[in-house]
Amino acid sequence: MDQSVSLISASGESKLDRVAVEEPLQITIDGHPVAVLMRTPGDDEVLVTGFLKTEGIIRFRAEIRKLVIDANHALVFLTDEVEWDVTRLSRNLFSASSCGICGKATIDAVMGEQVVLNDGPVFDRGVLLAAPDLLREKQITFNSTGGLHGCGLFSRSGELLAIHEDVGRHNAVDKVIGRALLDEFDPTDSFLLVSGRVSFEVMQKALAAGIPMVAAVSAPSSLAIEFAKQSNQTLVAFLRPPGFNVYSGAERLNGSALP
Amino acid sequence: MDQSVSLISASGESKLDRVAVEEPLQITIDGHPVAVLMRTPGDDEVLVTGFLKTEGIIRFRAEIRKLVIDANHALVFLTDEVEWDVTRLSRNLFSASSCGICGKATIDAVMGEQVVLNDGPVFDRGVLLAAPDLLREKQITFNSTGGLHGCGLFSRSGELLAIHEDVGRHNAVDKVIGRALLDEFDPTDSFLLVSGRVSFEVMQKALAAGIPMVAAVSAPSSLAIEFAKQSNQTLVAFLRPPGFNVYSGAERLNGSALP
Repeated sequence: MDQSVSLISASGESKLDRVAVEEPLQITIDGHPVAVLMRTPGDDEVLVTGFLKTEGIIRFRAEIRKLVIDANHALVFLTDEVEWDVTRLSRNLFSASSCGICGKATIDAVMGEQVVLNDGPVFDRGVLLAAPDLLREKQITFNSTGGLHGCGLFSRSGELLAIHEDVGRHNAVDKVIGRALLDEFDPTDSFLLVSGRVSFEVMQKALAAGIPMVAAVSAPSSLAIEFAKQSNQTLVAFLRPPGFNVYSGAERLNGSALP
Repeated sequence: MDQSVSLISASGESKLDRVAVEEPLQITIDGHPVAVLMRTPGDDEVLVTGFLKTEGIIRFRAEIRKLVIDANHALVFLTDEVEWDVTRLSRNLFSASSCGICGKATIDAVMGEQVVLNDGPVFDRGVLLAAPDLLREKQITFNSTGGLHGCGLFSRSGELLAIHEDVGRHNAVDKVIGRALLDEFDPTDSFLLVSGRVSFEVMQKALAAGIPMVAAVSAPSSLAIEFAKQSNQTLVAFLRPPGFNVYSGAERLNGSALP
């Protein structure tokens, strides 16, 4: 989603240009305000669904009894079966902040209890190398504004299953994972491609959805690599065909250990 | 700060490469854990000092009675004069999260009470156009890893007063502002240059330090522009010499309204 703004160029001309929209979205779960995401509007249902999944609150879409989007407010109502409480939520919600009152702002809380994936599946190198072009073609708003992160989910055969854009890189990941839940397809046989860098939190969100491989166009951080190794995820970065680097889990790439 | 990691290239070769370090830093103020930042270690004193300033907790360095950095923990002790409480802190700490218990996660809390800067000073276009090259030369860790955001503070005469890098774009801004506090120079006559995009939160942090102009190499978001207009800040983006776009406050640029 983009909008038109007026600007003055270096040569002093007044012009109109498109910029990516950033607005706050307040998420309330069963009456508790839990988070404000700075996001690009337009796909709030997928964003909130993905957020609930990657923060470990829900496992399935059916656990959301009702989701009301009203401008910049998302009101979530969970089924009675969901064992959710406010203190549990804050475990993974750390990014720039955490709460002093509930006392969950500890380093252990950030890292969480780490799940370890099983081995497999194996992805084809050709499929991986074709992915960046497919993602770029579909990044409609990035192409008009330069202001959005893109994230795509690809099947083993190279099909682009879902793509979303957002001013926040974590939101783009949440949207793609939310799309998988809403469309009821299983992402555990797929891989994620992100248009920028890959941080610890991107790996953590992929793991929460059971996604075994994450590829990034740009650089990985040290903690993203460490987390990927501990959770048996495959991490590919600097994916710029014909080159790429594999930092963890190279055995998931067909022929990647061979010249 | 970077570290060496082993990887496998697309051609199957084992190699060593440098990656940017990302580690959590837990900040505790007067015994209250308030935040965990995912940051690049090495300049924690400047980061924490800047964070305290841009979150509106302190005005001057002297308000920090003691700051102890112990590995990934920062223990802050404020002077008795600082009127600080936990609920006040959470006002600006929203990014990916906010706390459900203290109930501060509202959109109004994110926006805060907005300060409006006075007019002036005026910056020279030539100084602005020279800044990206100066920043890039000094982005030592970015140049070796591709994994860091850079932020520089420039004087009106074009001198690079401070530069810092971090895996988090907001942390890079906090570090530069922290450096100004630690070195006791006044940033209100300077401008910030960020290596990437400019979000609402970058403008908010600059405003908290009284910095009148922010320039970015990449795109602005809609809310960054709106916030800059409301606070009378100058916002320049797509600063790629010889071009740039001015989205707000063009009167602070010498000759910018003239071809």
